[in-house]
Amino acid sequence: MTKAITASRLVGILGGMGPAATADFYTKLIELTPATTDQEHLRVVIWADPTVPSRQDALLSGGTDPTPWLNAGADQLQRCGADILVVPCNTVHGYLPAVMNEREVEFISIIETTIAAIPATGTGEPIGLLATDGALASGIYQDALTAAGYQVALPSPEQQQTLMRLVHEVKAGLEGSALRTDLAVVTDSLRTQGVRVAIAGCTELSTLLDGQADTNGLQVIDPAVELARETVSRAQAQTTTRNEGPTR
Amino acid sequence: MTKAITASRLVGILGGMGPAATADFYTKLIELTPATTDQEHLRVVIWADPTVPSRQDALLSGGTDPTPWLNAGADQLQRCGADILVVPCNTVHGYLPAVMNEREVEFISIIETTIAAIPATGTGEPIGLLATDGALASGIYQDALTAAGYQVALPSPEQQQTLMRLVHEVKAGLEGSALRTDLAVVTDSLRTQGVRVAIAGCTELSTLLDGQADTNGLQVIDPAVELARETVSRAQAQTTTRNEGPTR
Repeated sequence: MTKAITASRLVGILGGMGPAATADFYTKLIELTPATTDQEHLRVVIWADPTVPSRQDALLSGGTDPTPWLNAGADQLQRCGADILVVPCNTVHGYLPAVMNEREVEFISIIETTIAAIPATGTGEPIGLLATDGALASGIYQDALTAAGYQVALPSPEQQQTLMRLVHEVKAGLEGSALRTDLAVVTDSLRTQGVRVAIAGCTELSTLLDGQADTNGLQVIDPAVELARETVSRAQAQTTTRNEGPTR
Repeated sequence: MTKAITASRLVGILGGMGPAATADFYTKLIELTPATTDQEHLRVVIWADPTVPSRQDALLSGGTDPTPWLNAGADQLQRCGADILVVPCNTVHGYLPAVMNEREVEFISIIETTIAAIPATGTGEPIGLLATDGALASGIYQDALTAAGYQVALPSPEQQQTLMRLVHEVKAGLEGSALRTDLAVVTDSLRTQGVRVAIAGCTELSTLLDGQADTNGLQVIDPAVELARETVSRAQAQTTTRNEGPTR
């Protein structure tokens, strides 16, 4: 029996940074795919090696460069036939140009996708940025926001400490309403700086958001949601129809 | 800078059947891993091709044999270096002996792991079995339960229809309390047959359980939890310590 099956392009997820953020991203990818049967969902391969050295240590205190692990993972995903590569970790994006630029594969940047998702307000308020100490030190989001013409507002040093505690707590397996409440305090603190749109620029924070949050007049953009939405769009942009057998 | 990193054996997850069940299994695997940092988590590779032909159609109405897709996925995972293969889909296990037996890789059966997790009651009540029509037709769970000396109790035909509706609703992206309530009605109906322990033998049903449920004196075993627990145990049983660079 042969039956035409329309298959999406193969999405390669370079994950494990951390594992919970990867599982959260994959869940969002599934939820954002218009499908009523298994067969309508995206074909996905995930390489999740959480032993990639700490990006915080590498960016802030001369720790081991994670680049060899990133190249090894990208190699695995390309060997599997991935047509598109995505990395559901904001902080590591500082290392990705060197990893992705030489590869003949489509790469979707979580940073670029998030910047493109900022709504036009036209009133010039600064964009709030919640990111890890390491990501802030690398400047990846600030540079992209500045290049796009935005001012940037950061949490106070005290709130930044709270943010880093939340990131480590999610990596340690904690979850629940207490963490969400603490995150709300951090985002709320940005409003005193005139912020109306903030970026939750760390996929551990994404696990604490329920999609795009809009509370008390502050809109929080979830980069994991934006990356998932763009990934679905591009994976379905080209499909292959085949009569029998699995795509290799 | 070199730093000794202890890495788990590489876990290969043959998933996509369905996608939400795979994301749920990966989340459970992470939650059941004793870890406080990313680097202590398991190394995982996931092949999730949801275009595997419907197992229900294959088992019940002469639909396309999914075996070539399963072999292709297992090949991919082995090429990535997987030391252990697991498949978070109960129904497809009827096809797995032919796929796994010739491979030089450790395979953990969700069926065997679940049977081993049945608590000793010593009072001879039948074990309740919630499984898809296809899984029931293949007899995978009934045969294993019988071989282990258990009687089997199934839902009424009406409750079995509710169960199949729930499975398709999860595959279509539905979730929430209404589905959980309907599942509770199905499990409760087993109690009238004297059941005190039931198996939620479909990973779509697993997404509706919060770990092992024990309500009104009926204990529901979640095979996805049992498989995740056994996978963590076996992946951590042997680890490799290396001084620098990623494991290939």
